[in-house]
Amino acid sequence: MQEHTITFDDREQVKVPTGTLLTEAAQAAGIEIVQPCGGQGRCGRCTVLARTGNIRRRSTLRLSAEDIALGYTLACQSVVEGDSAIEVPSQQVVERRLTTDRILAETPVPESYAFKTHPSIRIVPLDLVPPTMEDQTDDWSRVQASLRRLGYPKVDCSLAALQQMGKILRNCGWVVRAVLDSTDSRTPRLVCLLPDTSETPVLGAAIDIGTTTITVWLVDLVSGKVIAQAAEYNRQIKRGEDIISRIIYAAKNSGDEEMRLLVLETINELLERACARVRADPDSIYKATIAGNSTMMHLFLGIPAVSIRLSPFVTAANQPPFMKANEIGLNIHPDAAVDCLPGVASYVGADITAGVLSSGVDDSSAVSLFIDIGTNGEIVLGSKEWLVTCACSAGPAFEGAGVVDGMRATRGAIEEVWINTVTFEPTLRVIGDVKPKGICGSGLIALLAELFLTGLLDKGGNFNLEAGTPRIRAGNHGLEYVLVWGAESGHGEDIAITHVDVDNLIRAKAAIYAGFSVLADSVGVSLEAAERVLIGGAFGKYINVEKAIEIGLLPDMPWDHFHFLGNTSVQGAYRALLMQSERKRIEDIAAKMTYIELSADNAFYDAFTSALFLPHTDLTKFPNVRPAEIRAKVKS
Amino acid sequence: MQEHTITFDDREQVKVPTGTLLTEAAQAAGIEIVQPCGGQGRCGRCTVLARTGNIRRRSTLRLSAEDIALGYTLACQSVVEGDSAIEVPSQQVVERRLTTDRILAETPVPESYAFKTHPSIRIVPLDLVPPTMEDQTDDWSRVQASLRRLGYPKVDCSLAALQQMGKILRNCGWVVRAVLDSTDSRTPRLVCLLPDTSETPVLGAAIDIGTTTITVWLVDLVSGKVIAQAAEYNRQIKRGEDIISRIIYAAKNSGDEEMRLLVLETINELLERACARVRADPDSIYKATIAGNSTMMHLFLGIPAVSIRLSPFVTAANQPPFMKANEIGLNIHPDAAVDCLPGVASYVGADITAGVLSSGVDDSSAVSLFIDIGTNGEIVLGSKEWLVTCACSAGPAFEGAGVVDGMRATRGAIEEVWINTVTFEPTLRVIGDVKPKGICGSGLIALLAELFLTGLLDKGGNFNLEAGTPRIRAGNHGLEYVLVWGAESGHGEDIAITHVDVDNLIRAKAAIYAGFSVLADSVGVSLEAAERVLIGGAFGKYINVEKAIEIGLLPDMPWDHFHFLGNTSVQGAYRALLMQSERKRIEDIAAKMTYIELSADNAFYDAFTSALFLPHTDLTKFPNVRPAEIRAKVKS
Repeated sequence: MQEHTITFDDREQVKVPTGTLLTEAAQAAGIEIVQPCGGQGRCGRCTVLARTGNIRRRSTLRLSAEDIALGYTLACQSVVEGDSAIEVPSQQVVERRLTTDRILAETPVPESYAFKTHPSIRIVPLDLVPPTMEDQTDDWSRVQASLRRLGYPKVDCSLAALQQMGKILRNCGWVVRAVLDSTDSRTPRLVCLLPDTSETPVLGAAIDIGTTTITVWLVDLVSGKVIAQAAEYNRQIKRGEDIISRIIYAAKNSGDEEMRLLVLETINELLERACARVRADPDSIYKATIAGNSTMMHLFLGIPAVSIRLSPFVTAANQPPFMKANEIGLNIHPDAAVDCLPGVASYVGADITAGVLSSGVDDSSAVSLFIDIGTNGEIVLGSKEWLVTCACSAGPAFEGAGVVDGMRATRGAIEEVWINTVTFEPTLRVIGDVKPKGICGSGLIALLAELFLTGLLDKGGNFNLEAGTPRIRAGNHGLEYVLVWGAESGHGEDIAITHVDVDNLIRAKAAIYAGFSVLADSVGVSLEAAERVLIGGAFGKYINVEKAIEIGLLPDMPWDHFHFLGNTSVQGAYRALLMQSERKRIEDIAAKMTYIELSADNAFYDAFTSALFLPHTDLTKFPNVRPAEIRAKVKS
Repeated sequence: MQEHTITFDDREQVKVPTGTLLTEAAQAAGIEIVQPCGGQGRCGRCTVLARTGNIRRRSTLRLSAEDIALGYTLACQSVVEGDSAIEVPSQQVVERRLTTDRILAETPVPESYAFKTHPSIRIVPLDLVPPTMEDQTDDWSRVQASLRRLGYPKVDCSLAALQQMGKILRNCGWVVRAVLDSTDSRTPRLVCLLPDTSETPVLGAAIDIGTTTITVWLVDLVSGKVIAQAAEYNRQIKRGEDIISRIIYAAKNSGDEEMRLLVLETINELLERACARVRADPDSIYKATIAGNSTMMHLFLGIPAVSIRLSPFVTAANQPPFMKANEIGLNIHPDAAVDCLPGVASYVGADITAGVLSSGVDDSSAVSLFIDIGTNGEIVLGSKEWLVTCACSAGPAFEGAGVVDGMRATRGAIEEVWINTVTFEPTLRVIGDVKPKGICGSGLIALLAELFLTGLLDKGGNFNLEAGTPRIRAGNHGLEYVLVWGAESGHGEDIAITHVDVDNLIRAKAAIYAGFSVLADSVGVSLEAAERVLIGGAFGKYINVEKAIEIGLLPDMPWDHFHFLGNTSVQGAYRALLMQSERKRIEDIAAKMTYIELSADNAFYDAFTSALFLPHTDLTKFPNVRPAEIRAKVKS
């Protein structure tokens, strides 16, 4: 067999045959590469940099496209096929690539694209003849006449534009730029006049109102580029972490108004922050396009959301009317159009229609499964020809709520877990690299998967008392696995996952998986027909797909079927902000999508019940998940 | 000659021949009837009640149509033509008929008329099928579907309507009324849903923003009736009494915003007051239609008015855009449409277009002269075929400003003056029947006329020192006539009219008369071609036409050509509020009207110069005014 020379860190060399794993080569060379997950390609901690040579990657699961392009590879998943020079980065460097500010990290911004075909905002230069005693035409009629000559036969005017018109026309010597908004798509509307210099920017804002996080993209409407972004927790969180508790709070006393003000404050502060970054005035924002789930949209507009929660789960409006910023208190140009994108029904809101747009589900003849698992879980299955959608009442377990030691993905949250197959001792990754205080969603998925894969949990979600580890014990809530002993935790208390927590998590993942099944069944295709699984939402960005498959949350498909798209909702809002045609496309998506109400569906209950196992009752659906029992045998 | 028996107060009887004046008959019967104006039919103080009999009225100038219908007649102008029974009311009764709250008196309300043809607000009963798990259509789409079936293929929605929708649909068992607004005339807009009971009123407001007075009519949009009204001084008065000083104030610092808030406060208080009278909630007002001069409209909308004052006298917009109440802070239903009516140019605003509509100038083939002399003076000449208009920079003299002892028509203002032809002693009528503090516009017109008619002023406006009355004296501002000695005045000071005051008044009246001339000349007709002189505005309601003719302010025409229409501006707003077709008609009026800028017109200066005499240089234009010189001869 052919041998290859592997050089580590320009110092150590070793000769190994074709097919050797890099971890094995390193061991032979006396180089230590950590493998918390036991070389299963799950944790990413064994990431190394292949500077030169011929390495075949079996899996790249924890690596970003950028990482791969740079040459990073998982040592435990890298097969030697030629001479190579390998650099083993310090664990700090590896961690830095893997952990950033997880929730508030900025979604990759799309490259600016050709949006000039159907711009929603037009900037029209005007060169007016000043009034005289012989021509006393009023300012607005004069502007209209000029616009008519330029091909705008009828243009509406906003009040703020009129308030500024006289001054700007005279200050600028009757040479100005008109900002025309076509959001309403019927008659263009003059938002304002601007001096005829490029120094006064023409900006727009694409906003995603998430239950947990609100994201603002500040867009230059001339170049189409995102010039600043900002994200922050939705201040409504203090009145409830999940959608249901927010609706309940809003329905009490004047909770509606309080909720409206909380989200408004958050958005206004983000707009200000984004503007400050580019030294712009929020008054230079002439249009805002908003996506968000139905409940968030209702609360933002001061529309009671109570009917969304109660059978038959009806929204007040899936398509809110066009508004102006001053009507709702958005601190941008007072007459800027505020375009709230259309939703579909019930919990399936504009975040999903915008997500379908930006993920391109509706643009491909291939069948795609689109998943947005944020604080809620919405799913779309479809293609250019058809779209079906449903909302899974997964509950907030994957947001860390309803779990004893659960927490949001903030500093001190355990976000990744590996359990040693032999010792059952855990290795953790904690956000901020501090002592842990609790477990966030991605940590819970990882923990559940690891407990299952190491045999500490059986497929029914029961702890294995026979494993012989002190970490499994009887606690106040039944059996539990202690992930962190009090001595090592941030608050001095043990951090554990209880039997009840496990049940909650299994119910949550079962609801989502059942959603997939019902959607597929409703159109008579198998889930495997989906050629792509498109994962949007801040949550989806950080979950470990392999582990999510292992617990039966995601369908068992080849890894290259999964695509993490980041915040697809704000991306869709961004496109709709720039182009009327994209805005129209979102409307078409909303109209085309068939909403399937799961709570009225017996098929859903059947699918749900079948999914209440790790990974599933029907193991043929998860051929690549190696049941824990097998490993237990390995151990014994 | 035939004799007739005249019975006074059921007691005194006298026999007099046909043609005897009632004042002469009363004298013969030993009954005292006061004649402050010397029996010239000018003061109205000799008003008596003809209960039965045959009396021919030579003039009814000071009498209202209601007075005449009741049988009131001016004794000095009443010719006996048959047996009659006459009642001589006490002076208190006469005064009460003549003086009421002059400025704030309510304009007679038009009878409700058939407005159902093109209503601007439609009230549509809806009987909806409630949502089920099989039909989860959102509330707004459900309402839209129902409206579609009723013949409204596309309806917009307002935010406030959405905010209330879910609750009202469920509280009312899905049987409601939809309030649809067609102000925009493109797509009807749902303003709100209401319970299906007639107990919740559907109201509108017609508003006239006058420089001095703001008038609000509260209208039941179902019956079309005016159900309450309220009027109040425009609070901007404290920042300037006339338009020019308001524009100047508004242009300084943040004067625009202060002016906006002042007028807004006034309107909101009036709306509240009118609603309180019928126990209605201002939130039940679903539409407001607003008339007012260009400057008032600009200040109300926060649009700088400065360009109106400076050459070439251009407004920012003659047709403001449609707005919603919450955009401008009007305290009615937040999503009520606020329809600001269109003006023509410069100072000729929506008060004039509304006035032309309600006075019917544009509806008749007869040529009419329409005059609105409020704080400003605007004139329209025209018919069904053509309309010309101008604004006379008369200045505020007739509002009592720019005159040493001038004041507004409030309590303590001298509003009518008669000067005895022999003694030159004045008789006064004072608003509120208190000691006088100054002279208001109608008082100034009367005073000027009396001074001229009694020979105390010559046609050039110079005082006649030869008259031999101590009331003419040299004061600080040249010669003056003392109308009230300090001992009898409300503030202990003499009240006088100075030579400078007289000059100011003559310039003001000359500007207005010159306006008439220029308009007539511009279309090549003589002023006499006008078959009707229609006088609108609060000011016009109280001036003594005869005296206004005598000083050359109004053209010399038979008295029955003059028609006092009260507040034609609010009447026009009322019609436009109810009917889309009337609203359209105002737009047509605005488009059809030719505006003539007087300040650029040499013909105006010539006409103005010719009018700088009492009554005019060309006495053939005033054949019925007997020049003072003749009377002076009578005296000598």
